Amino acid sequence: MADVITFGEAMVRLYPPDFKRLEQTESLNLSVGGAEWNVAVDLARLNVGSSWVSVLPDNPLGRLIRNKTREHGVDTSKIVFKKDGRVGLYFVEFGSSPRASKVYYDRGNSAISCMDLNDIDWDEVFEGAKWFHTTGITPALSENCAKVTEIAIKKAKEKGLTVSYDLNYRSKLWSPEDAKKTTERFIEYVDFCLGNEEDAEKVLGIKVEKAKRGDFAEIDKEMYKEIINEMVKKYKFKYVGVSLRESISVLRNRWSGLLYADGNFYLSKSYEIEIVDRLGGGDSFTAGLIYSFINKKDYQSAIEFAVAFSALKQTIPTDVNWVTYQEVEDLIKKGGARIKR
Amino acid sequence: MADVITFGEAMVRLYPPDFKRLEQTESLNLSVGGAEWNVAVDLARLNVGSSWVSVLPDNPLGRLIRNKTREHGVDTSKIVFKKDGRVGLYFVEFGSSPRASKVYYDRGNSAISCMDLNDIDWDEVFEGAKWFHTTGITPALSENCAKVTEIAIKKAKEKGLTVSYDLNYRSKLWSPEDAKKTTERFIEYVDFCLGNEEDAEKVLGIKVEKAKRGDFAEIDKEMYKEIINEMVKKYKFKYVGVSLRESISVLRNRWSGLLYADGNFYLSKSYEIEIVDRLGGGDSFTAGLIYSFINKKDYQSAIEFAVAFSALKQTIPTDVNWVTYQEVEDLIKKGGARIKR
Amino acid sequence: MADVITFGEAMVRLYPPDFKRLEQTESLNLSVGGAEWNVAVDLARLNVGSSWVSVLPDNPLGRLIRNKTREHGVDTSKIVFKKDGRVGLYFVEFGSSPRASKVYYDRGNSAISCMDLNDIDWDEVFEGAKWFHTTGITPALSENCAKVTEIAIKKAKEKGLTVSYDLNYRSKLWSPEDAKKTTERFIEYVDFCLGNEEDAEKVLGIKVEKAKRGDFAEIDKEMYKEIINEMVKKYKFKYVGVSLRESISVLRNRWSGLLYADGNFYLSKSYEIEIVDRLGGGDSFTAGLIYSFINKKDYQSAIEFAVAFSALKQTIPTDVNWVTYQEVEDLIKKGGARIKR
Amino acid sequence: MADVITFGEAMVRLYPPDFKRLEQTESLNLSVGGAEWNVAVDLARLNVGSSWVSVLPDNPLGRLIRNKTREHGVDTSKIVFKKDGRVGLYFVEFGSSPRASKVYYDRGNSAISCMDLNDIDWDEVFEGAKWFHTTGITPALSENCAKVTEIAIKKAKEKGLTVSYDLNYRSKLWSPEDAKKTTERFIEYVDFCLGNEEDAEKVLGIKVEKAKRGDFAEIDKEMYKEIINEMVKKYKFKYVGVSLRESISVLRNRWSGLLYADGNFYLSKSYEIEIVDRLGGGDSFTAGLIYSFINKKDYQSAIEFAVAFSALKQTIPTDVNWVTYQEVEDLIKKGGARIKR
Amino acid sequence: MADVITFGEAMVRLYPPDFKRLEQTESLNLSVGGAEWNVAVDLARLNVGSSWVSVLPDNPLGRLIRNKTREHGVDTSKIVFKKDGRVGLYFVEFGSSPRASKVYYDRGNSAISCMDLNDIDWDEVFEGAKWFHTTGITPALSENCAKVTEIAIKKAKEKGLTVSYDLNYRSKLWSPEDAKKTTERFIEYVDFCLGNEEDAEKVLGIKVEKAKRGDFAEIDKEMYKEIINEMVKKYKFKYVGVSLRESISVLRNRWSGLLYADGNFYLSKSYEIEIVDRLGGGDSFTAGLIYSFINKKDYQSAIEFAVAFSALKQTIPTDVNWVTYQEVEDLIKKGGARIKR
Amino acid sequence: MADVITFGEAMVRLYPPDFKRLEQTESLNLSVGGAEWNVAVDLARLNVGSSWVSVLPDNPLGRLIRNKTREHGVDTSKIVFKKDGRVGLYFVEFGSSPRASKVYYDRGNSAISCMDLNDIDWDEVFEGAKWFHTTGITPALSENCAKVTEIAIKKAKEKGLTVSYDLNYRSKLWSPEDAKKTTERFIEYVDFCLGNEEDAEKVLGIKVEKAKRGDFAEIDKEMYKEIINEMVKKYKFKYVGVSLRESISVLRNRWSGLLYADGNFYLSKSYEIEIVDRLGGGDSFTAGLIYSFINKKDYQSAIEFAVAFSALKQTIPTDVNWVTYQEVEDLIKKGGARIKR
Repeated sequence: MADVITFGEAMVRLYPPDFKRLEQTESLNLSVGGAEWNVAVDLARLNVGSSWVSVLPDNPLGRLIRNKTREHGVDTSKIVFKKDGRVGLYFVEFGSSPRASKVYYDRGNSAISCMDLNDIDWDEVFEGAKWFHTTGITPALSENCAKVTEIAIKKAKEKGLTVSYDLNYRSKLWSPEDAKKTTERFIEYVDFCLGNEEDAEKVLGIKVEKAKRGDFAEIDKEMYKEIINEMVKKYKFKYVGVSLRESISVLRNRWSGLLYADGNFYLSKSYEIEIVDRLGGGDSFTAGLIYSFINKKDYQSAIEFAVAFSALKQTIPTDVNWVTYQEVEDLIKKGGARIKR
Repeated sequence: MADVITFGEAMVRLYPPDFKRLEQTESLNLSVGGAEWNVAVDLARLNVGSSWVSVLPDNPLGRLIRNKTREHGVDTSKIVFKKDGRVGLYFVEFGSSPRASKVYYDRGNSAISCMDLNDIDWDEVFEGAKWFHTTGITPALSENCAKVTEIAIKKAKEKGLTVSYDLNYRSKLWSPEDAKKTTERFIEYVDFCLGNEEDAEKVLGIKVEKAKRGDFAEIDKEMYKEIINEMVKKYKFKYVGVSLRESISVLRNRWSGLLYADGNFYLSKSYEIEIVDRLGGGDSFTAGLIYSFINKKDYQSAIEFAVAFSALKQTIPTDVNWVTYQEVEDLIKKGGARIKR
Repeated sequence: MADVITFGEAMVRLYPPDFKRLEQTESLNLSVGGAEWNVAVDLARLNVGSSWVSVLPDNPLGRLIRNKTREHGVDTSKIVFKKDGRVGLYFVEFGSSPRASKVYYDRGNSAISCMDLNDIDWDEVFEGAKWFHTTGITPALSENCAKVTEIAIKKAKEKGLTVSYDLNYRSKLWSPEDAKKTTERFIEYVDFCLGNEEDAEKVLGIKVEKAKRGDFAEIDKEMYKEIINEMVKKYKFKYVGVSLRESISVLRNRWSGLLYADGNFYLSKSYEIEIVDRLGGGDSFTAGLIYSFINKKDYQSAIEFAVAFSALKQTIPTDVNWVTYQEVEDLIKKGGARIKR
Repeated sequence: MADVITFGEAMVRLYPPDFKRLEQTESLNLSVGGAEWNVAVDLARLNVGSSWVSVLPDNPLGRLIRNKTREHGVDTSKIVFKKDGRVGLYFVEFGSSPRASKVYYDRGNSAISCMDLNDIDWDEVFEGAKWFHTTGITPALSENCAKVTEIAIKKAKEKGLTVSYDLNYRSKLWSPEDAKKTTERFIEYVDFCLGNEEDAEKVLGIKVEKAKRGDFAEIDKEMYKEIINEMVKKYKFKYVGVSLRESISVLRNRWSGLLYADGNFYLSKSYEIEIVDRLGGGDSFTAGLIYSFINKKDYQSAIEFAVAFSALKQTIPTDVNWVTYQEVEDLIKKGGARIKR
Repeated sequence: MADVITFGEAMVRLYPPDFKRLEQTESLNLSVGGAEWNVAVDLARLNVGSSWVSVLPDNPLGRLIRNKTREHGVDTSKIVFKKDGRVGLYFVEFGSSPRASKVYYDRGNSAISCMDLNDIDWDEVFEGAKWFHTTGITPALSENCAKVTEIAIKKAKEKGLTVSYDLNYRSKLWSPEDAKKTTERFIEYVDFCLGNEEDAEKVLGIKVEKAKRGDFAEIDKEMYKEIINEMVKKYKFKYVGVSLRESISVLRNRWSGLLYADGNFYLSKSYEIEIVDRLGGGDSFTAGLIYSFINKKDYQSAIEFAVAFSALKQTIPTDVNWVTYQEVEDLIKKGGARIKR
Repeated sequence: MADVITFGEAMVRLYPPDFKRLEQTESLNLSVGGAEWNVAVDLARLNVGSSWVSVLPDNPLGRLIRNKTREHGVDTSKIVFKKDGRVGLYFVEFGSSPRASKVYYDRGNSAISCMDLNDIDWDEVFEGAKWFHTTGITPALSENCAKVTEIAIKKAKEKGLTVSYDLNYRSKLWSPEDAKKTTERFIEYVDFCLGNEEDAEKVLGIKVEKAKRGDFAEIDKEMYKEIINEMVKKYKFKYVGVSLRESISVLRNRWSGLLYADGNFYLSKSYEIEIVDRLGGGDSFTAGLIYSFINKKDYQSAIEFAVAFSALKQTIPTDVNWVTYQEVEDLIKKGGARIKR
């Protein structure tokens, strides 16, 4: 039985090798990713029982996503397979300074965005679970997805699960107005909110004076605290997590995190990352926090673990955090750039 | 100025290497293909001025298709670029006996299928052209595509172009009933019809007694003549072309062709093909015929050329027939399996 | 809960691309395989609940094998992880006539061959299961493996499971004398025996007059029946399955199967296979039979299914049979070398 | 009709993957490049009508270069195809500090270096064109190439085209003495001169006191101004463009540019580049300037555009600048190392 | 000290993967080959001491060829390195029926073709050697190469070495007239002549009535005997070896050999080959004969060995015969298409 | 005849491409490496006659290692081939900050570790040689390897060779206690000792007060001098060499070296390296020193050469230093990050 349930879309990721652009490539690497899928997979890598709930078409790509989910030990028994429909795709072009990386989505009309309201029996899904996680991408996929998100969050809350929600604003999917209106249907049921200052503004309408997150600028932690204070005041979140990325360049980032819990702030140490693949970094941060909460780490240890875990993710290709718990602990305790033999 | 205009959809083709199945692959090769695109490209390879008319989104994959079209020397000035929309995709799994190859389409909502009725100015497109070619896939994409196909065929006829049409029945796109009803709106304007016995039955409703095309059976040429006679009787085609494939196995095929022209039948010699990639073989056959007609080859030479040209195609990866005119002539005249130094 | 339990070693398979020999390669493809693992995985692909029991070291390759097992939906909860030890490897060189393919093993001192007698709690493993399968490779790995095999088979029998056993003689692992002596410790508990005439001779000491299986010769089915009769007489097997491979050439094989059940023989139809990767073909045959028995197909249907299923396997890279049940049914019913769209 | 004509050699580029050295590689990537070809292609990517004039052999590599030229929309109707001859090749080894990248040329006896004086009808080529561009590589290829360069430049000037010329000194092709003597036959017809301090010294004999361009040193812009002043004084150039590269390390460069126009200097902002492939960077700079002049950008905007455009080039594999105009504008206006979704 | 000396050119071979044509490829595989190099390498693989004599430029590709020669254990101390010059290249396109494979040479002006007459000290080279081998390609490279070939053959004869010579007519390098005239300067010193009916006609002017070697026709052994009889009559060869290839298709060949020795003919058994890479097959045949003569096999065993050895070559990528002596013996004795474990 | 003899194990190195982790890879690159093998190969690249002494199994991987050794010109005539046994393997995962690279060994029971005491005739091996090199890995492989190391070192000393020894402590192979006890059996015969502060502590029991080598800290050269002074005092080494690596990050290191010779210290200049593959860096440092001593460079030049040579190594994939002597000289004299044309 899974402790953590995540709900959302996973897509097939297609990306050219060796910094090539899509227009010039003759081959694509293939992997799987999606905000909530990433969280479920990263939790399973940390030996947390997780189950990913979604809708997939019964075709090779749908089965491929199911298989890769199982590969990591995530429960797939709650996935709904549909005879027809398509799998969403996203294309990634990796850049280097001054060319930023780019993601192109081709996710319209995916099986999950065409889901029916009663495809999923949430009572059954939540049976025995402790935690429910989803993100702002899911309700943005379609009105039915928004409704199911609402149903799921309320049901989770009702059944006593901790509910975490990553605001994850996606401008390709909806406007700030739509995001705000929809999110307000269920945000009050959220215990643990994740997001950054852009999400806070676009999805929650929270904007503080100095909220200007420059790309290369040093991050202003006070600004983040201010925003979080606003969020907590307005929506009564028990916990808020924010990952802090400073982009020294496209391939060199500084990475840390801030956790608000029970009225206090906990700031992690910072890592300089030589970026290999930053996609999934934020989801690993979330998974690291959920892991820590489920395993009752203290708050400072929780944010340290989440940041170290998600820093490692960004040195590994694909959305998945292919590390072991021990490796995270080793990084926190020993660090070190020397080769390990 | 292009002599030949083709109209239809081109898609990005994605296929795993080395006989892998989609479910197991971690990379995909990428190329471009589509029935009418293939014909335009193959004609350009034979130095026939050709122009491919279509609708593409202005994104990397749309530009990639445009670029690859230009790569072969096909005119791309008549392509309509739309700000939004997606490019259709198809996935190919190559098989070997007893596993047949498989094609999976993900072409719904492609830019061309969402085209507007007046996106293309056919008067301008046909200016100075001699030949118009499209296939039964185009009208099957959407009602608007069907309407535009009808408009284009009638306009081409009106302007004195030779109109060729490959029946190309695709069961994933429409039913025989819909195919028949739509096709009858313009089939009378077609001069040169291409297709096989299945197309004839599904699209034109023509079925002769003995029409049973077994996979491994020797092909019954008389049956084909009978079908063609019915087609000509009913629709007054001046020319009919049929490629004849006998599948000894998945990787070994026997390939020949039959041309009906001005009341007579012309049967080509037959080639045994060691299949590398059979996709685009039929379109090369069509291109070989159009080439021959435009260059006024006699009918027997025309079918011999079309068959040799399209046999070579099937030994080359991707939908494109990467040969030269000289190589086709050499095959027809000298053949030979010896290495050429 | 799994219906079928298999027990044995899985190794990492390393093989050069493109018919290269090991001495000349600069890269290796990596997959996973092993006789009993293959059976568990192929059953899971057919939606039979299966569990693979084995011993693995807790290192990246050990985890990789565990992950790939999960990828197919096989239960991995009964795998025993050891802190130390190594994963067995095998290297494959693919050949073409007249060069046969070659397998090189580097499996000495693998974690499973160093297992302890009480690593596995067979009572727990067999809880709720219907079928137990292992092969002659497992007892050949080490004396402890032989003892555990004996324990497991007896326990399975005692608990009412059907026991199948593939003789699978491996000359690199033991001598015929050792094989015979060890096998006789538990062969009487086997219900369903699989193997060929070489296995019968080397492992069971059964040799009939005409038993000479030439490589390119037509297979003598009467000879097989005679051997099976001897096997049944001596060891009281209820069922015997033999796959019949005729090697027209290295890359073209003819493939059929023979099933003995309840006193009768059932011979399947024969497929000509264009070989892509024959490894795992025999295991797919076994999986096809177990599937059929569990799903109560009649004997003729069982052997037809097993042969069609395992023929498809040999057209797909790696040991795994990446097909769906529907594709097997389609092959049996329709066959056909034409491309499927 | 093309606005810009470029004349010169394009070669097939062969380069090992993954920082391998040629001696150790078992595969080579293949693309196309050449100073004047790069400029034509980069202009076409910016939607400037360009035509590349050259001589190619009618063999697969000659056709490949022609095809890739067309792929980008460059006019290829002015390429002269010869029955015999070879295509020039260059091999690239990518390095990292402290190993610099290396280029090895195998371009002797290429088709263009064996060209005839009247292979190209310059009157026809320049019909309707506005701009002619070539570089110091072309006259260095052979005496006939030098003569044709002279003919072309004079004809272009006579017909009122703007003539741009990149000094591009190549020590492998000729000595400073030969370069100087040959260049003086036509340099007075050049309107727009491109080059660096080494070119100025070797090709034009201009050397200022402090001209020492250290690799890791900060660039001395005053020195460049002094050189340009000398160049302008001596040869009456209307415009001079210099790209300024500071090599922090092999994989990290600082990149800016200096434009002299109508008596004034315009210095661009500087970009730190995480180098993926610096080849073609200088040609993109030239193309960016030509684009800006043809589109009548003001001088400061022109140098900003050229520098941003050519900075992006260096983050992309191959000589070609696979970006869009919009992406250059976005970089200039917004910059940013964040992923674009 | 080497027993066998071979003299000639080795080139870098570049070939697209997966049956691609050069015009469409984005990568090339790289290996080394050349008629005399192949023989030296294949002999070294059979543990015959061999030395390859040639001229190479001191650049990465020249060193790469030297390295690969050493890799197989061939002595490279007699290679002459020149400061300048280029390495010859050849491009291979692999075909399948009805498209034959194609080789394109780019070997003009290679270092060896520009060699000086006294670059090689043949007295030193032949010190202690037993056998000298070269082919008709070497004298065709340049007049100096022809002269050196003549010098070397005469010197070898004078020093008592057995001289073998493969006629190897290459129409791209010279005309039959030139070939004949040059060859006659030294052919009388040859002990062992290798070649086929085309070589005999073009190089030696020997043409028998029925000499028509059709591609798919069964080979007429009598015709070969007649040609050999003519060759022996005219040039007093002690031995003549001919490999006999029947091309069932591009990818399926039948392969055997005919040896004339001391007045008698010895015909080998025939192998059906599933062709992976036929280049170097003839050279392996020659190496197999030289091996057999040096190791004093009887004539029938010699031709059997040479044919089996060279049949295996054609199942392996690159010009090199990556087999062991034991594998050849196994093929001759046991054959078999079954996998070897 | 070789000047330098090295003795030890070489393994096949297997590593995933593109920063992938082993658990996620589907392919592995293959090369060869091993401390003493690397030194022999790097010396051969510098044209020093070297011979690598080892034990290999006669199977494809054993032959592959032999071949690759020959490829570089190292003498392989002293390798002992055994009929059975296995080749050791090591797997490498390349990391980026904050994930360090990782090496996993699978070298147990390799042919060399199972060697017999009299497999190698050291009198014959050392015939005519000047220098013997081995490392602390060899005696750690097995007790027999320790004994043979002792025999070899004493014999080398007796025969007047210079003996160099790299302490190379490997915690996976033995404990500090075992290392110390074994090493003391022969360390007094060593002339030239290589190692770092960790080796000195673990193998020689030498630990100075301030010996704490932090990863990112600036290296304390005084500490190293102190350690070396202790080493020299205790073991009477004539020369000690230490490479100094400062890890700015995983992919950026600062690299220099310290040589103690005849009572004085020589410190090299420092290079910032953009790491491509650091494995083999230390061995290149050793090879650079041996080269310099054999070629009688002065001490300062020796350490400069060794450091420049080994810095270049780390920019090249695989353990081998694929550079030329000239390139090292160019780096020392000119440096420079500019592309070389």
